[in-house]
Amino acid sequence: MKHRPLLFFLAAVAFSLPAAAEDGYDLWLRYRAVDATAYPELATGVRELVTGAKTPTLAAAERELMRGLSGLSGTPIPLVGAISQDGALLYGTPRSSEVVATLPLDLARLGPEGYVIRSIAVNGRVATVIAANSDVGVLYGAFHFLRLIQTRAPLHALDIASQPRTRIRVLNHWDNLDRHVERGYAGQSIWDWHKLPGWLDPRYTDYARACASVGINGSVLTNVNANATSLTPAYLEKAAALAGVMRTYGVRVYLTARFSAPIELGGLKTADPLDPAVRAWWKAKVDEIYRYIPDFGGFLVKANSEGQPGPQDYRRTHADGANMLAEALAPHAGVVMWRAFVYSNETPTDRAKQAYDEFVPLDGKFADNVLVQVKNGPVDFQPREPFHPLFGAMPKTPLMMEFQITKEYLGFATHLTYLGPLYEEALESDTLVKGKGSTVAKVIDGELHGYKLTGMAGVANIGADRNWSGSQFDQANWYAFGRLAWDPTASSGAIAEDWLRMTFSNEAQFVRPMVAMMMGSREAVVDYMTPLGLHHLMDTGHHYGPGPWVDNLSRADWNPTYYHRADANGIGFDRGPKGSDATAQYSPKVAARFADLKKTPENLLLWFHHVPWDYRMSSGRSLWDELVLHYTHGVEVVSQMRAAWAAQQDRVDAERFAQVAAFLAIQQQEAQWWRDACIAYFQSISKRPLPAGVAPPAHPLEYYRQLKFPYAPGRG
Amino acid sequence: MKHRPLLFFLAAVAFSLPAAAEDGYDLWLRYRAVDATAYPELATGVRELVTGAKTPTLAAAERELMRGLSGLSGTPIPLVGAISQDGALLYGTPRSSEVVATLPLDLARLGPEGYVIRSIAVNGRVATVIAANSDVGVLYGAFHFLRLIQTRAPLHALDIASQPRTRIRVLNHWDNLDRHVERGYAGQSIWDWHKLPGWLDPRYTDYARACASVGINGSVLTNVNANATSLTPAYLEKAAALAGVMRTYGVRVYLTARFSAPIELGGLKTADPLDPAVRAWWKAKVDEIYRYIPDFGGFLVKANSEGQPGPQDYRRTHADGANMLAEALAPHAGVVMWRAFVYSNETPTDRAKQAYDEFVPLDGKFADNVLVQVKNGPVDFQPREPFHPLFGAMPKTPLMMEFQITKEYLGFATHLTYLGPLYEEALESDTLVKGKGSTVAKVIDGELHGYKLTGMAGVANIGADRNWSGSQFDQANWYAFGRLAWDPTASSGAIAEDWLRMTFSNEAQFVRPMVAMMMGSREAVVDYMTPLGLHHLMDTGHHYGPGPWVDNLSRADWNPTYYHRADANGIGFDRGPKGSDATAQYSPKVAARFADLKKTPENLLLWFHHVPWDYRMSSGRSLWDELVLHYTHGVEVVSQMRAAWAAQQDRVDAERFAQVAAFLAIQQQEAQWWRDACIAYFQSISKRPLPAGVAPPAHPLEYYRQLKFPYAPGRG
Repeated sequence: MKHRPLLFFLAAVAFSLPAAAEDGYDLWLRYRAVDATAYPELATGVRELVTGAKTPTLAAAERELMRGLSGLSGTPIPLVGAISQDGALLYGTPRSSEVVATLPLDLARLGPEGYVIRSIAVNGRVATVIAANSDVGVLYGAFHFLRLIQTRAPLHALDIASQPRTRIRVLNHWDNLDRHVERGYAGQSIWDWHKLPGWLDPRYTDYARACASVGINGSVLTNVNANATSLTPAYLEKAAALAGVMRTYGVRVYLTARFSAPIELGGLKTADPLDPAVRAWWKAKVDEIYRYIPDFGGFLVKANSEGQPGPQDYRRTHADGANMLAEALAPHAGVVMWRAFVYSNETPTDRAKQAYDEFVPLDGKFADNVLVQVKNGPVDFQPREPFHPLFGAMPKTPLMMEFQITKEYLGFATHLTYLGPLYEEALESDTLVKGKGSTVAKVIDGELHGYKLTGMAGVANIGADRNWSGSQFDQANWYAFGRLAWDPTASSGAIAEDWLRMTFSNEAQFVRPMVAMMMGSREAVVDYMTPLGLHHLMDTGHHYGPGPWVDNLSRADWNPTYYHRADANGIGFDRGPKGSDATAQYSPKVAARFADLKKTPENLLLWFHHVPWDYRMSSGRSLWDELVLHYTHGVEVVSQMRAAWAAQQDRVDAERFAQVAAFLAIQQQEAQWWRDACIAYFQSISKRPLPAGVAPPAHPLEYYRQLKFPYAPGRG
Repeated sequence: MKHRPLLFFLAAVAFSLPAAAEDGYDLWLRYRAVDATAYPELATGVRELVTGAKTPTLAAAERELMRGLSGLSGTPIPLVGAISQDGALLYGTPRSSEVVATLPLDLARLGPEGYVIRSIAVNGRVATVIAANSDVGVLYGAFHFLRLIQTRAPLHALDIASQPRTRIRVLNHWDNLDRHVERGYAGQSIWDWHKLPGWLDPRYTDYARACASVGINGSVLTNVNANATSLTPAYLEKAAALAGVMRTYGVRVYLTARFSAPIELGGLKTADPLDPAVRAWWKAKVDEIYRYIPDFGGFLVKANSEGQPGPQDYRRTHADGANMLAEALAPHAGVVMWRAFVYSNETPTDRAKQAYDEFVPLDGKFADNVLVQVKNGPVDFQPREPFHPLFGAMPKTPLMMEFQITKEYLGFATHLTYLGPLYEEALESDTLVKGKGSTVAKVIDGELHGYKLTGMAGVANIGADRNWSGSQFDQANWYAFGRLAWDPTASSGAIAEDWLRMTFSNEAQFVRPMVAMMMGSREAVVDYMTPLGLHHLMDTGHHYGPGPWVDNLSRADWNPTYYHRADANGIGFDRGPKGSDATAQYSPKVAARFADLKKTPENLLLWFHHVPWDYRMSSGRSLWDELVLHYTHGVEVVSQMRAAWAAQQDRVDAERFAQVAAFLAIQQQEAQWWRDACIAYFQSISKRPLPAGVAPPAHPLEYYRQLKFPYAPGRG
C-alpha cells in the first residue's frame, strides 16, 4: 500500500489579512496612524475639533480635519460645538465664527488666501486656531495643520502665517477630449468626458483635495493644442459639472481657446482679432461660458505655435489676439494666459531666441487681465536649460512661469526624477536686470516689476492610473510644483522631505537617504541624457530614448543634430556673439557670462558654445573625456539609487516598494541605453578613444539607431 | 462688544473611519466576512486548511483558499500540515497528495480540468476534499468551494463533480499596442506594453485569478484587427512576461496573427499561404514564439474581413490560410482560431449570408488544430439576432462560439445590460439539424458533431478602469461568459444570482429583485434600441446612440437604412425566399419557420420580413403601434430598474451604490433619446400617428440627426 502516514505537523501559521493596499492612490494625504510613543504631541495637541459654519468649503475643511485627525490619531476625534477642554482645535473666518472674530489674529495682512495657525488661549483653554479671511484660506490652513502632524512637527506654541506669493497657481492638463493625454505617462485623462456630466467620478473630488492641499487654485482642463469642441454647449455642461466639484476646494476651471473657434464653431469666415464679428462672437461665447461656470477662470492660449492658429494668421500681433479675448473676459474678472512658447515655421533663426524676439516688442501692449506664460527655459522643458531670457525683459507685462511636471524629456513615468531642484534652479536664477538678487522668482511673484497679476503653471502629470502620476515618486513633482507656486522661494529639499514623510515614512533612516536620493535624481538624468548643456537629443516624436543622430525631420529645429552640432572639431551650439547671439537676450552681465566660454557654467557649456573635443575642462580632462564620464556617472548614480531603495524594503509597504524597485530597474537599463547610444554616436564623430577604464557601449551604433518605439505613450 | 457666549454644546459625534472603499476592484472575489449567525455552516465546515504541494498552481490555490476562507471567516484560518480535527479542508491531485491519492474519488471521469469537492471521512475526521487530476483542476475546485461559501450554500454532504464542456475558453482582447481598446468602454488596455516586461502590474495577477475563478483558460492579448509588431521579439518578450503571470492560473496566452506579417516583418514579397517562403517564415516565427512562450496557445485570425489581409488576396481559401498557420503550430500543440466574421467588399448579397456562403463549402478542409470562430448571430453582436446559420452547418469543422462581452451595441459602460440571457438564448437555439434538441450549445460543446476541439470566445470588456469593466454590473457579463463557456447549458438566471451574492449581498430582499432586474435588462435594451427584429440602427463609427437615418456610408451594408429598409409601405429586411433568401441557410424546419411571416417569432419579425406598417400583430395592434409601444416600454423598464436599485440603498456600500445609480440615470436619459429619435425618424416614414396616450418625441427629428459624438470611446 502506497499510503504512508504523514509524520510532520506544521504549527498553525498565523495568517493576517493584508491591510488596505498601499497603491499610491492616497498620495501625500495618507493619514495613517502615528506612533503615539514617538510623537506624543498629537494626543495632547488635538483633543477635540470645534465644528464650524457649513459653507461648502468650510465643510470640506472640517471633513478633511476629521478624516486626517481621526486617521492620524487612530481613533475618531470628537467633534464638538464649543471648546470643552485643553487641546481644542477650532477654525473659521471672522465672518463664519464669532470666536475667530474676537481673537487677535491680525488677519488683514494675510490677503484673500492666506491663513494663520496659532496656539492661543480661548475661554481659558489651550487651543489651536486655524483662521483666514476666506473659506479657502481656512481650507489651506487645515491642510497645513495636518501636514504638521504628518511630518511630526511640534503642535505647541504654533505661530504660523502663510499666504501665497503668486495669485494664479494652475495645472495645465494637456488632455484631449478622447482622453489621450499629450505627453501623459499616467494613463488616460482623468476627465471622463463621455460620462460627464451624468457621472461625477469620486476621483474628481480627490483631485481637488490634493490640489488644495498644496495651494493649487486652478485647473486648465484641456490641451493647449486646443479643440474648439470643448467650447460647445455639450462640453461646457461637462466642464461645469467638474467646476461644481472643484469650486468647493478653491480650484477654478479654465479652458484652452482655439483661436479659430469663431470659424469652426461660429461659421465666420475669419478669426481676425480686429474683426468686429469675431470680437462679438468671442464676447457672446465668453458670456455663455459664464452662464455655465460663474467662476470660470479664463483661457489658456497657444497661438501661432507648432501649427496652432493665431492672430499672426491675420497679420495681427499676439497682443491683438490676447487683448480680444481679455476684453471678453474682463467683465467677468477672467484672465487670459497667453503662451510665449512660439517659434516660427519660417524664420531660420535660433529657436531659443524666437519667443524673446516676438514678445519683448509687445511689452506694455497687453490688457490688464493678460498674463504671458513663459516656459522655464528657452527651448522646451529639457533636463537642463538656462532660464528663459524673457524673465526680466518684460517689466510691463505679467509673466507667469510654465513648468512641466510630466516628464516628457526626463524619463516618462519609470525614471525616478525629482523635479524640485530643476524648478528651484530656474526660480533662483538671477536675471540681474535690477542688480543682484533679481531672481526669476521675484519676476514671477511680482516683486521685481510690481506685476498686479502673478502666476505659475505646471503641465500636469496626472492621469487615470491608480497612483495618479504613473509612478509613486512622480507624485512628488505634482506636490513640489504646488508648494513652489505658493512660495517660489521655498527649498526643494525641504519640500522633498515633507513629501517623503507624508507619503512614506518619518523614520530617520528612511527620510535622510531618500531625500538625498531624490535631490540627486535630476542631475543623474541630466548626466545620462544630456550632460554639459546638451539638449533635445531625444528620439523623434515620442521623445523616449536617445536619438542624437536624427537629422531628417521636416523642420531643422526639430532635429537633435540642430542642437548638438557635433562635428569632427567639437560639439555644442554657439549662441555667443559669433554664433546665434542668443546670449545678447540676457541682461548685460548675464550675457557677458554666457558669451564667454570660460565663464559659462560647465553644466550649460554646450548650450552656449561649440567647444573643441580637446578643450580642457576645469577638471583638467578633455571635453570628450568629461562628456563620457558624465554619461557614465549618470548610470552609476541610478545604480546607487537602486541600492538605496533596496535598503528600504522593511520600511515601505510591499506594493509600493515593488513598483518603485521595478521602475528603478527599468531606469537603470534605460540610463545605460542612453549612455551607450550617445557615446556610440558621439564617438563616431569625435573619433576619440574612451577614457581609460570606461566600458564601451554594449552594442554598435547601428543597434541603437534601429530601435523603434511606435507605441510609446504620450505622443503629441 | 460683538462676542456672545456660545450657548449650545454638541455631543461628541462619533466618527468612524470608512472601511476599505468598495470600488469594484475585487470583482466577485470579495470575501467579506459572513454573518456567522445567519450562516453557521462556515464555522463548523472549515476549521483548518491542510497545506499541500507547492507547485505554482497549487500554491496559488492555497493562497486563494487562505485569502478567501480567512476573509469570509473574519479570522485567519489555520494552515496545518495534516488533518488534526473535524472540519479539515484538503486539496490536491493524486500526484501531489498522498492522502488524495488514497481516497476513492473516481477522478478518471473528470478529464484534465475537472474536479471534485467531496465531504469525506479521512483518518476518522470529517473533512472536505478538493481534488482533481491536474493542478489547475484543483484551482478551479478551490474557487468553486469559495463560491459555495460566498453564496451561503451548505458545506456538508458535498458531492460535487464538475468539468468543462468546452476545451478552449478564451477572452479576446481587442487591445491595440497603444493601449486603445477597440470597442472598449473601461479605459485603456490593461496591458501596459510600454512598461513590459520590466513592470508586472499586480493587476495582471488579479486578472488571471478572476479568469481562473470562472474557468477561463486562455487570453488573446491583441486585437483581431492585428498589428504585425506584436510578433516582433520586443513584443514577444513582453507577451512572455504576461504568460509567466497567467500560467500559474491556467490561462494560456494567444496572439492575433496579421496575415501580411511575412511581408511587413519578413520582407517577403507575398503572404501567399501556398508560397514555400511564406510557410517557412511562419514556421520559423512560430518556433520563435514558443521559445519565448513554451505553452503559447496559438493564433486568432481575422482575415479578409473589413480590410484585413488574408488568403483571398492571393486567390486562396480561408482553409489554405488557416492550415498554413496550423501546420506551423501543430508541432507545439497550438491551435488556430479562424474567424468566420467575413463579408465581402464587393459582393452585393445580404451581409447576413456571406459567412455561411464562404465557409460551408470549406467544411472538412481545415486541419485538425483549426477552429472556426463564429459570432452568435449572422450580422454583428446586435441586441438581438437569430442564431448564426453556420451552427449545425459544418459538422466536420469545429465551430467555436464568439460572444461579445463588451457592449459595443448595447449601451457601452453605462447601460445596465446583463448579457446572460442573450448568451443563453443563442446557446439554446435549436438548429434542428439532427432533430429536436440540436442546440447551438451542443454544436459548440462538440456533442452534436463529435468535434474533438471545442471552444468559446468572449470579446473582453476589461480595461484599466478601477472596476475592470467600466461599470459594476458589466462585471457580471465577464462572469457569465466564463460560467457559460464552462457549461453552455447553464442557466443565466442562476449565474446572475451567484454573481449578485458574491459581488453584493446575500440578503433575500436584495437578491430577488436584483436578479429580476438583471434578467429583464437585456430585453429593455432591445426594446429601446432595436425591437421586433430591427438591427444595426446605431450611429456611424462609434455605435453610440441612434442613427436609423444614416444612409451615406461608403458601404451599403454599413448603413442602418440597409438593415431596416423602412419605407412608406412598411419596415424590415426580407430575408425570405422572395428576399435575400438568407432563411434558406438554416436547416429546413428552421428555414420554413423563419421564411413564414406568420411563424417567425415576433421578436425577430423585422429581421426576416419587410412588414406593412398596418400588419396585425398577435396583440391585435398594428405593427406601427406595436413598434412604438416597444420603444416606450423599454424606457419604462429602465425607469423601473432605477426605482428597484434606489430601493437597495441600505444594502449596498455607498460608493458602488452611487455609481450604479448615476449610470442608471444616464441610461434612462439615453433610453429616452433612443426611443424618441427612432420614433421621430420612423414616424417621418410611416406617416402614422402615435398610439393614444403615448408621448411624442421630446425634440423634432432634426435635433437627433445633428447630434455628434466625435470622442465617444472605443472607436474601431
